[in-house]
Amino acid sequence: MRKAVVLLSGGIDSATTLAIARAQGFACYALSIDYGQRHRSELVAAARIGEFLQASDHQFVQLDLTTLAASALTNATIAVPTDGVSEGIPVTYVPARNTVMLSLALAWAEVLESRDIFIGVTAVDYSGYPDCRPDYIAAYEKMANLATKAGREGEPFTIHAPLIDLSKHAIIRSGMRLGVDYGLTVSCYQADDDGRACGLCDACRLRRAGFEAANVPDPTRYQQD
Amino acid sequence: MRKAVVLLSGGIDSATTLAIARAQGFACYALSIDYGQRHRSELVAAARIGEFLQASDHQFVQLDLTTLAASALTNATIAVPTDGVSEGIPVTYVPARNTVMLSLALAWAEVLESRDIFIGVTAVDYSGYPDCRPDYIAAYEKMANLATKAGREGEPFTIHAPLIDLSKHAIIRSGMRLGVDYGLTVSCYQADDDGRACGLCDACRLRRAGFEAANVPDPTRYQQD
Repeated sequence: MRKAVVLLSGGIDSATTLAIARAQGFACYALSIDYGQRHRSELVAAARIGEFLQASDHQFVQLDLTTLAASALTNATIAVPTDGVSEGIPVTYVPARNTVMLSLALAWAEVLESRDIFIGVTAVDYSGYPDCRPDYIAAYEKMANLATKAGREGEPFTIHAPLIDLSKHAIIRSGMRLGVDYGLTVSCYQADDDGRACGLCDACRLRRAGFEAANVPDPTRYQQD
Repeated sequence: MRKAVVLLSGGIDSATTLAIARAQGFACYALSIDYGQRHRSELVAAARIGEFLQASDHQFVQLDLTTLAASALTNATIAVPTDGVSEGIPVTYVPARNTVMLSLALAWAEVLESRDIFIGVTAVDYSGYPDCRPDYIAAYEKMANLATKAGREGEPFTIHAPLIDLSKHAIIRSGMRLGVDYGLTVSCYQADDDGRACGLCDACRLRRAGFEAANVPDPTRYQQD
């Protein structure tokens, strides 16, 4: 069985990505980054999802970027916007996040002698993020193959981004077909310790709209309920 | 004054790189990664060098890769080779190290609105490392400019690798001209808590040969002295 490293945040997209990697026959090594994000219930969700989807291993890497980053997700003094999805780059942007996460995945893949890395980026609903686009993923893959002994010696790495062209409702439909329990996932940028969502932030709005568009009952537990 | 993020490990190469960035007129933001390396005296050396070369700021990021990595530098059960510099990829190789470090530098550069990142890789004496070659640096820069808002919007990042074509003795001569005190640096893979070098590992051998070839007295303090 070929090994794949799968970045797992605890949200809908990475849970679906893990289910896809597993359905493609990979032994999945789930990797979650604890970078001091405010919505720590995401990491609890990631642990449950890794277990539910039978990851072969699941590691959590601690990476404290608070001294470097000044984005809304890691700096409690910047408010999370709750007035709807806006144009351009959201203020919840964490600098170089996918680049940092893919680099840690690459490190683990090299150790595991895995040549496959899965990341749940989508260019559709989050088009404001530069590091969620196909040209970025292709450039990362090229760089990774020059960075590593295996890549140089004809055993190239592949960065799989199976959701990249999918909208949120298409992602949800794919995951439902593969048996993902979305009740285990947390998307909210300011979920409470119980994993209950605010219902107001960008992530909650996109998630709710996704379940509506997919014609699927929303399994999210809200703080207002 | 333009800002640059400079990766600073505490060895000869990164100290020289910091001096070069400063001589080029950059306000230097030194970044050191504490990834649980065995030679912790390197981090103490990095702090001294950052101060000596008047970095505008110096941050240390904790990143524990011990659960992921199984290389000699982070796993105390694998012996550091002491029988001379060998061909090919050294066993002291840390997976994806430069990729991980550059990604953290990119994150900080984005926050600082710096567009310049300096890394002290050299393709000459360490040709065994795939992530120390010019094609890798070029591919990283291209990826970084697709990963980021600034890069997409016509304010590209430059990855500076000013040592890439220099041998160890040429690096030492450059640094001496710029006033680097190499007595502050630590290269040894197994230095003691005082920063005294073993004199036997690959890093010590390359360092000693570099001072000899540069015709400069070796300021290194050895454990045998």
